[in-house]
Amino acid sequence: MKHIEGGVCAAKGFKAGGTHCGIRNNKNKNDLAMIVSDQQCAAAAVYTKNKVQAAPIAITKKHISNGYAKAIICNSGNANTCAPNGEEIANQVCELTGKVVGIDASDIIVASTGVIGEEISFEPFETGIPKLARELTYQGSKEAASGIMTTDTIEKEIAIDFELGGKQCAIGGIAKGSGMIHPNMATLLSFITTDVSISPKMLQKALSEDVKDTYNQLSVDGDTSTNDMVTVLANGLAGNKIIDCNGEEFIQFVKALREVTAHLTKKLAEDGEGASKLIICKVTDANDVEVARKISKSVVSSNLFKAAMFGEDANWGRVLCAIGYAPGEFSAENIDVKMSSKLGEVIVCKGSRYFDHSEKVAAKVLSAKEINIDISMNEGSESAMAWGCDLTYDYVKINGDYRS
Amino acid sequence: MKHIEGGVCAAKGFKAGGTHCGIRNNKNKNDLAMIVSDQQCAAAAVYTKNKVQAAPIAITKKHISNGYAKAIICNSGNANTCAPNGEEIANQVCELTGKVVGIDASDIIVASTGVIGEEISFEPFETGIPKLARELTYQGSKEAASGIMTTDTIEKEIAIDFELGGKQCAIGGIAKGSGMIHPNMATLLSFITTDVSISPKMLQKALSEDVKDTYNQLSVDGDTSTNDMVTVLANGLAGNKIIDCNGEEFIQFVKALREVTAHLTKKLAEDGEGASKLIICKVTDANDVEVARKISKSVVSSNLFKAAMFGEDANWGRVLCAIGYAPGEFSAENIDVKMSSKLGEVIVCKGSRYFDHSEKVAAKVLSAKEINIDISMNEGSESAMAWGCDLTYDYVKINGDYRS
Repeated sequence: MKHIEGGVCAAKGFKAGGTHCGIRNNKNKNDLAMIVSDQQCAAAAVYTKNKVQAAPIAITKKHISNGYAKAIICNSGNANTCAPNGEEIANQVCELTGKVVGIDASDIIVASTGVIGEEISFEPFETGIPKLARELTYQGSKEAASGIMTTDTIEKEIAIDFELGGKQCAIGGIAKGSGMIHPNMATLLSFITTDVSISPKMLQKALSEDVKDTYNQLSVDGDTSTNDMVTVLANGLAGNKIIDCNGEEFIQFVKALREVTAHLTKKLAEDGEGASKLIICKVTDANDVEVARKISKSVVSSNLFKAAMFGEDANWGRVLCAIGYAPGEFSAENIDVKMSSKLGEVIVCKGSRYFDHSEKVAAKVLSAKEINIDISMNEGSESAMAWGCDLTYDYVKINGDYRS
Repeated sequence: MKHIEGGVCAAKGFKAGGTHCGIRNNKNKNDLAMIVSDQQCAAAAVYTKNKVQAAPIAITKKHISNGYAKAIICNSGNANTCAPNGEEIANQVCELTGKVVGIDASDIIVASTGVIGEEISFEPFETGIPKLARELTYQGSKEAASGIMTTDTIEKEIAIDFELGGKQCAIGGIAKGSGMIHPNMATLLSFITTDVSISPKMLQKALSEDVKDTYNQLSVDGDTSTNDMVTVLANGLAGNKIIDCNGEEFIQFVKALREVTAHLTKKLAEDGEGASKLIICKVTDANDVEVARKISKSVVSSNLFKAAMFGEDANWGRVLCAIGYAPGEFSAENIDVKMSSKLGEVIVCKGSRYFDHSEKVAAKVLSAKEINIDISMNEGSESAMAWGCDLTYDYVKINGDYRS
């Protein structure tokens, strides 16, 4: 398995692009992205569990209910959520995309991200979609990644190649995140493409299992978005024997998928709204994997702990507090906590009690940009990780006037 | 029922006081509080559900397991949580208090609040407790309220009087809050006293029911503390016929208790860490009271919504988003949202869709210090309220260097 260039265009037969079509006022920011496969794809998706859902989610669910899709269209700048005409617009967007690309509207995945509750106009799509369709290229991943950004500060993409039954395969993805990030059994927006041949059922199985340990273990601010969606398109152009059951090749595909999603999850945490530090919390020796997931996510979700990280203060009592209110059955009697970074490491707590350490060393460790919090529960052998970021003045600033 | 002066000393036979004994370095801030009843009291309490718990919680549970207590001792400046010698110190504190006050150590409620995980020394208590016991007065409520403060900016106290079977009764309370406030089936620290005669069982019933709609509906930052505790002491000096079953007098007592707890809850939200605005969210027409509680609490807990309130931005999409991720079974299809304050009101959403309104008027409404968010679910007749505050630069500042 090795990292390669190309993002969602790394796999054979995927074109992509991004453009500014006028949904946003700022002409320097793209607001429309498209990904099109040369060939029909097995499709899988997971969605937000928020009861308020963006209109495109209902349309996408309908379109991929048969397990197949061929293209993705996504706008930023307007979430198309609670908009009076939301479903109508999402359908029109699919129809026009289908027409200019030459495929059926029902083979299109549609997504939106941006402000919730504002009216959405079809006008910018009307000129933007045909223009974008003409500009698609087999090297267009970065443009597509830019077209789905909101308050993200950098494009997030990755691709890797690997072998499957002697065939060279690739898988790649793009993602957007920033704020309203606390996925629940689904996630933010992330589009993944691969040329692996795999059945829709196995593709869905791989994705649904994967998100439990990647996107669902990410928190920027505790707010589960109305628009979360991760999709994978697999067009089979690698020519491997189709994966339609469990086995060695499925395991290899799952590993490759994990490489992509774990990378994007980390990038999303790092670029969390206003973030100055990436926080990676690893829980080991837990009595249950779900408990390990809940505890690690509880720690990276704690406002108090996140503010302490911003202040580079090794206030480990807040780590213990956040462990203690995580749901699930576990003992909080014998917990060890270590904080580390490339600048060193410091054990701050042993057996749920203060462990003698130098505050000076701790402050140095925490002055790095990437901080690891390692927690041992000392009562089992399960482990899990979660990704988050610090809580900063900039988070408050960005969200105090997001719409202005 | 009318509001009176006196806080926890408003009821007959309660002395109180507060002092600086050296747990904190800052000599201008009290760090020890004591409340003593002239007569044995029925006692009730609710505690944090955090699995990491302060040492005093275990001691208090043991001491009031027989339903009775006579005094409260509480320090601020150190949470006595995860401290190596926590239980030992909490026991010593009770023993010395009992000795100087002339009561049994097992009749004492003990509590702590402050930094988690730091070693706690008995030394300051050794001189502080005898000194404080000598200084107790029947007008000492405000001093006691100051002794339990951490980052609180004002003392929180209230008292009311009311009649019960022809007897004049009083009930009063003090509370501390500020950060790490997201109570779960219990709460922060609040001590309530009354001279009503009531059995321990009925007192516990009144308190356990009450907190579901008061302290448990409060959120400052989503962090459930390790030290939460609310206690009520009832010494019976009002001379009413003892309340030992349901009935008119129990209902009247419950109403009086609610007046005290609702007032303190509101004060706690208003003085949330870094808060510049109080936010009161009322949910009506819900299909279930627990759903109404969860929805209102979800809204006041949303970081994104709280940041929007700080920015005085009527970004109602964030209200819909926070409603949508509240747990429980309900429809999000027909929701109305109104924002109001003493400066006016504005309907921003009808039937879960944008409702035409002036952003200018909305900005004026939100420029007030106390904001009401009224949500109608339009699917039932149950209602509930929750209290919170905005998310500000100061929250980040305070918690970036809480320990320094």
